[in-house]
Amino acid sequence: MTSESLDLASGDPAGLPGPVLVRGTGLLGASIGLALRTAGREVLLHDPSPSALAVARDIGAGVPVALDPAEVTDAGLAPGLVVVSCPPDVTADVVTDSLRRWPDALVLDVASVKTAVAAQLRRRQDAGELSATDVSRYVGTHPMAGRERSGPVAARGTLFLAAPWVVCAEESTHPDAVAAARGLAEACGATVRLMPAAEHDDAVALVSHLPQVAASLVAARMQGASATSLELAGNGLRDTTRIAASDPQLWTQILSSNAAAVLETLHAVRQDLDRLIVTLEDPDAEGARWGMARLIAEGNAGHARIPGKHGAAPQAFCVVTVVVDDTPGQLAGVLADVGEAGVNVEDLRMDHASGHEVGMLEISVLPARRDELAEALTRRGWKVV
Amino acid sequence: MTSESLDLASGDPAGLPGPVLVRGTGLLGASIGLALRTAGREVLLHDPSPSALAVARDIGAGVPVALDPAEVTDAGLAPGLVVVSCPPDVTADVVTDSLRRWPDALVLDVASVKTAVAAQLRRRQDAGELSATDVSRYVGTHPMAGRERSGPVAARGTLFLAAPWVVCAEESTHPDAVAAARGLAEACGATVRLMPAAEHDDAVALVSHLPQVAASLVAARMQGASATSLELAGNGLRDTTRIAASDPQLWTQILSSNAAAVLETLHAVRQDLDRLIVTLEDPDAEGARWGMARLIAEGNAGHARIPGKHGAAPQAFCVVTVVVDDTPGQLAGVLADVGEAGVNVEDLRMDHASGHEVGMLEISVLPARRDELAEALTRRGWKVV
Repeated sequence: MTSESLDLASGDPAGLPGPVLVRGTGLLGASIGLALRTAGREVLLHDPSPSALAVARDIGAGVPVALDPAEVTDAGLAPGLVVVSCPPDVTADVVTDSLRRWPDALVLDVASVKTAVAAQLRRRQDAGELSATDVSRYVGTHPMAGRERSGPVAARGTLFLAAPWVVCAEESTHPDAVAAARGLAEACGATVRLMPAAEHDDAVALVSHLPQVAASLVAARMQGASATSLELAGNGLRDTTRIAASDPQLWTQILSSNAAAVLETLHAVRQDLDRLIVTLEDPDAEGARWGMARLIAEGNAGHARIPGKHGAAPQAFCVVTVVVDDTPGQLAGVLADVGEAGVNVEDLRMDHASGHEVGMLEISVLPARRDELAEALTRRGWKVV
Repeated sequence: MTSESLDLASGDPAGLPGPVLVRGTGLLGASIGLALRTAGREVLLHDPSPSALAVARDIGAGVPVALDPAEVTDAGLAPGLVVVSCPPDVTADVVTDSLRRWPDALVLDVASVKTAVAAQLRRRQDAGELSATDVSRYVGTHPMAGRERSGPVAARGTLFLAAPWVVCAEESTHPDAVAAARGLAEACGATVRLMPAAEHDDAVALVSHLPQVAASLVAARMQGASATSLELAGNGLRDTTRIAASDPQLWTQILSSNAAAVLETLHAVRQDLDRLIVTLEDPDAEGARWGMARLIAEGNAGHARIPGKHGAAPQAFCVVTVVVDDTPGQLAGVLADVGEAGVNVEDLRMDHASGHEVGMLEISVLPARRDELAEALTRRGWKVV
């Protein structure tokens, strides 16, 4: 295969060949189907689970098909692109199967870890089970989107809207495969980021897998906490553990397939933790206080590097806090008045605490608009604090 | 002193004697002053930092006074209650000083760790530096509220609204001191929780100090992350590290004064972390996958025990997600329509991601209202996903 266009079932200006076959109709696959259908694309679906397939069909994610190439080709449904959205531990197998079944199709996967799949395909190429041309039709991708819930019932066509979608092309990857990945990401409303697989895996070990492990470690400690202790919990604990509700089976596959990169990060965390433990064993020892302060200060420094919304540089928004009753219409009333004041809301948060039927609505705005908004809301009778 | 009322400068039906002297006008002290002033109470302020004192006065938290008992008594300003809101490492000293200076006043502190202060006071009583009667006029308290920002400029009178305020009475504590603590908490809009000091310290080690350490450990790793990696960060990382922006000096004092309880928790976390590290060093070993799945599953179990808003039992709210443009008035429009539909918003969250000028507004409602709200919003032209 050269860098000229492949002979695909249907051309597409955005590089996305059709029809698209989605193999695996869980949360990601069914959401991709919904997004493509909304964009007017033809979507074929397959899943080894008849019920997952039926749910995906029922919510409008596409049309179920058999995997017999003769059958789908006869029906004029030969896929131009196969999207493999299976569990991580069978992704390489399904990619291999897809490359063999449809020798003219491009194939991509959406698994959370990229080097493991690529390495398995290379081994199959080295073993003569796949040709170099076959492997060149594949590109690994990873949409950075998900939910705590899984399965096609949790799917939504806007899951990828405004999310980064990483595409890990290799030198041997055919440009049409990269163009198809880009076309798919764009059709789903995501933003493409090209990145080598190893760099992607190191990055997600840090920004995704480490937070998951930390949230699980903290949340696991709450198993033995008294109800009285848990009543003292504030937003700090709630925020830190929000993602601890994730699926154990999925995360076992993610962590094990990115074991090396995750290990490197966890070893560094353990060193910091061990240092902290030593300081706490003798808090009055020379250097102990300094050691504690250093960990918190290093956390400050790392925290300041995390980008804010829209991938923009971290920006210190100012917060206007308004007291709201826990009754219908209160939030609406506040935000209607914010809208009338013509101030854009950069971020929004309800700050709940135990024991009272009131909440604090924290409205983040650009620093230059803070005073103006606080004044406007106060004038309209809101309790701004 | 008996359990009859002390001869205080002014009686109070709610048990809060006046005037109240706030020693230490940082975030907590100045916020207490503001709350009491709003409730129409007389507040005296003192801080060793003239500028912190001036800021507290300027924002209306109270009236600065000298600490000379003769001077304040002559001016008719002898405090009925002294609130010690100093940094944790000088709290016991300032409590001791206050008990000596004002032999008729009740004294409480608001430091985050309670056994350390009580132990220091007992040692002083044993050494004959304080009488049993003196110590009985003291009660330790801890309002479970705070902000990432510190100092009197960050103060707000509603800081404690709807927050738990722990009161740690001992058997020897005078009932008037407990009543004063209760009166103060209630005047600030908080909810009193009576709890032994040791139980409090164990509880905050788990629900407050552990999340802080975890957030700092994760955030510290971001110091060495590439900008490209950080661009892949989603709400998972942002939530997990939000509290990592806290003050190193304050947290050094908190962690060191609750070292034993924090250590116990951190040792347990290290055991879990070590077990995870072993599984990742050989992910294909027998039992390795099970070990990973177990940690995530234990996180699920602990997470499910964390109470939701208003201290209620964790409740599975349903989320209605609406796509909003990043322009003024959009949020207002959605929430006005939510209000018109008569559905109460249980929680609210903006879900931002990199690269696009749109956001997802996630509206949590009672399960029974979900479909109704989704339908009402769709009918009004919103994109519900």
